[in-house]
Amino acid sequence: RIDGERLWDSLMQMAKVGPGVAGGNNRQTLTDADAEGRALFARWCEEAGCTMAVDAMGTMFATRAGEDPEALPVYVGSHLDTQPTGGKYDGVLGVLGALEVVRSLNDLGIRTKHPIVVTNWANEEGARFAPAMLASGVFAGVHSLDYAYGRRDLEGKSYGEELTRIGWKGEEEVGARRMHAYYELHIEQGPILEAEGKTIGVVTHCQGLWWLEFTLTGREAHTGSTPMAMRTNAGLAMARIFEMVQEVAMAAQPGAVGGVGQVTFSPNSRNVLPGTVVFTVDIRSPDQAKLDGMRAAIESRAAAICAELGVGCAVEPVGHFDPVTFAPELVANVRAAAERLGFSHMDLISGAGHDACWAARVAPATMVMCPCVGGLSHNEAEEISPDWAAAGTDVLFHAVLETAGV
Amino acid sequence: RIDGERLWDSLMQMAKVGPGVAGGNNRQTLTDADAEGRALFARWCEEAGCTMAVDAMGTMFATRAGEDPEALPVYVGSHLDTQPTGGKYDGVLGVLGALEVVRSLNDLGIRTKHPIVVTNWANEEGARFAPAMLASGVFAGVHSLDYAYGRRDLEGKSYGEELTRIGWKGEEEVGARRMHAYYELHIEQGPILEAEGKTIGVVTHCQGLWWLEFTLTGREAHTGSTPMAMRTNAGLAMARIFEMVQEVAMAAQPGAVGGVGQVTFSPNSRNVLPGTVVFTVDIRSPDQAKLDGMRAAIESRAAAICAELGVGCAVEPVGHFDPVTFAPELVANVRAAAERLGFSHMDLISGAGHDACWAARVAPATMVMCPCVGGLSHNEAEEISPDWAAAGTDVLFHAVLETAGV
Ligand SMILES: NC(=O)NCCC(=O)O
Ligand SMILES: NC(=O)NCCC(=O)O
Repeated sequence: RIDGERLWDSLMQMAKVGPGVAGGNNRQTLTDADAEGRALFARWCEEAGCTMAVDAMGTMFATRAGEDPEALPVYVGSHLDTQPTGGKYDGVLGVLGALEVVRSLNDLGIRTKHPIVVTNWANEEGARFAPAMLASGVFAGVHSLDYAYGRRDLEGKSYGEELTRIGWKGEEEVGARRMHAYYELHIEQGPILEAEGKTIGVVTHCQGLWWLEFTLTGREAHTGSTPMAMRTNAGLAMARIFEMVQEVAMAAQPGAVGGVGQVTFSPNSRNVLPGTVVFTVDIRSPDQAKLDGMRAAIESRAAAICAELGVGCAVEPVGHFDPVTFAPELVANVRAAAERLGFSHMDLISGAGHDACWAARVAPATMVMCPCVGGLSHNEAEEISPDWAAAGTDVLFHAVLETAGV
Repeated sequence: RIDGERLWDSLMQMAKVGPGVAGGNNRQTLTDADAEGRALFARWCEEAGCTMAVDAMGTMFATRAGEDPEALPVYVGSHLDTQPTGGKYDGVLGVLGALEVVRSLNDLGIRTKHPIVVTNWANEEGARFAPAMLASGVFAGVHSLDYAYGRRDLEGKSYGEELTRIGWKGEEEVGARRMHAYYELHIEQGPILEAEGKTIGVVTHCQGLWWLEFTLTGREAHTGSTPMAMRTNAGLAMARIFEMVQEVAMAAQPGAVGGVGQVTFSPNSRNVLPGTVVFTVDIRSPDQAKLDGMRAAIESRAAAICAELGVGCAVEPVGHFDPVTFAPELVANVRAAAERLGFSHMDLISGAGHDACWAARVAPATMVMCPCVGGLSHNEAEEISPDWAAAGTDVLFHAVLETAGV
């Protein structure tokens, strides 16, 4: 078994880096806080006897050598970046859980056949730079490096510039590594495990996603002196699209979600009807046909809404992945480990996207999940218990050991 | 008659200060560009033989002495601040038109009985600091100086700090002056004069306004892993409120408007349902009962919308003025001047708020309007013709002369 206290202690230490305003974290990707978190993690990896490498996307790979010089490594990780008002566990548990696996192997003096690589993927959250899981996406060949470097935050700063600025742009070619397998531990970020009273989620699938960035063009005009009949009101069009997205998601129940998290009004003055309104619709489903059907419905209904109001409507997908099926043999390892360790468990479809979704394109991959209180995540109040963290990491430990070989 | 070429030349020179991105201006109140515009205006006033005074709100008063030492001054002005993407004439025409009145009096060697004070009111637009017409509101005793100094922009900077920073906080007590009368020339910012083929608007009234700042509190949560039934979606509540405001405004036709220009989503991340959504509803009508009825309807319907979604809803009025009736004797002066000068004219209700609305509380006040192309304002593409500008300023000149006495 792993050392649950040491794991929890590391989680609490990392949580001091980039503190939030309400008990959580603001350690957004490629900020100074991210650099500080990376340095702490790098020190811990070194202390655990690992060798660090960094690729050109800023992903960190800390290798614990294996016994067989020919054997491909087993990768285990997640991400240390957070939302602007993020929790202390989202991603962090997966990285520090992986480190705890290595620390426990060291304690027990176990040498594995395959090397083990503790991995911290860059920009998993997609909060600063869309899309999410950017570095693992480049690793898996889904995005080009140029595309990734050119992604910009709301202030116009690019991924490439910011990665260089914080000093974590590595030399290693992205995606040059080959993986024997990939495991990722993560908090569920949803309510199912807790509601069902299960400690371990055996993740068989991940639902697919579209992020549709809408740019609506209205006519900037005075809110007071412009008669209602003369308005080209992009804000009103936005409101109707929000409601329509809700309708489309409700009509696709069960097994679908839809919402909007980011909105920019321009010029954003109280007495000016907006000239430009930009927002991103986030829709997800584990069912490919349903997901693509929602997208088609939303795009055509949005076009009709805008046409009726005379508002210009452009849509650009800024994030996408198809529903993922994880590798059955690894999923079986996770299930068997939970069983062996005596933890209650159930099969689960991940509601959130994870680096495992891209890793699954280039290697057998799967995930282990543990509950979080009230299913709450992407909120500073995100909470888990030390027991849940330890249980998830124990299952990760056993599953990884099964694949890495003793 | 005034010198239309000189007036236009001054307008074009001022438009070079704080240029916008699309041919207009970004000379928002208490910015460096505002300070530069003020300095240019102060130099012109000095060259025209005026004496400058600045009050503690930053309003500029340039006095051309009168013949009668007992006579109260006639104030003539408007504002030099602009929207973030504002036009070259909104406010500016009224200030530089007033200056042109003084210049023309100088040219003609005319001494008036009453002094004439060319006035540049601070923060008319309300774009950076709500409410609009802040300095004239303090002058008229509607707001306290402390209230005004404490108003904050979206970055959290206060009016008081920024006024000190740009170096235009004057010594003079705000509102200590007494006025014989107040005249303001302004572009219409609406479509009526152009549509009716009239050159001069004789402004008899101004419609009233409420700015209602809504703060909706939802539950920050993951857009992917939070089931639809578990969402407390403040963005959806906002969308329904936008639609409801549109309905309320349409039901109040004719003679009412309603819309939203400013929205802030927080934390504003694509995969986070917003925890807080702040936006300002702008409603107006020349009919007091209708205006207050709209407000009541919007507040109660918004409360119901939010209650249904479980979203917290707080409303704070951040701007308000009742419908205004301008001084009949000054209105008659404007109408007579337009008639005498041979300009087509019509009576008009101002759709936008103006410093004249607050000045009307402490002195006889009225306005002169000239058309703008397509009724467009609060848009960098705002346009007027040199003839319209000259016609409006000629009418202003004659009306002011009538009141100031020769
Ligand atoms: N796990 C997680 O929150 N990832 C962010 C990407 C997403 O929006 O699903
Ligand atoms: N004239 C003008 O645009 N004033 C701004 C205040 C308002 O919103 O009416």
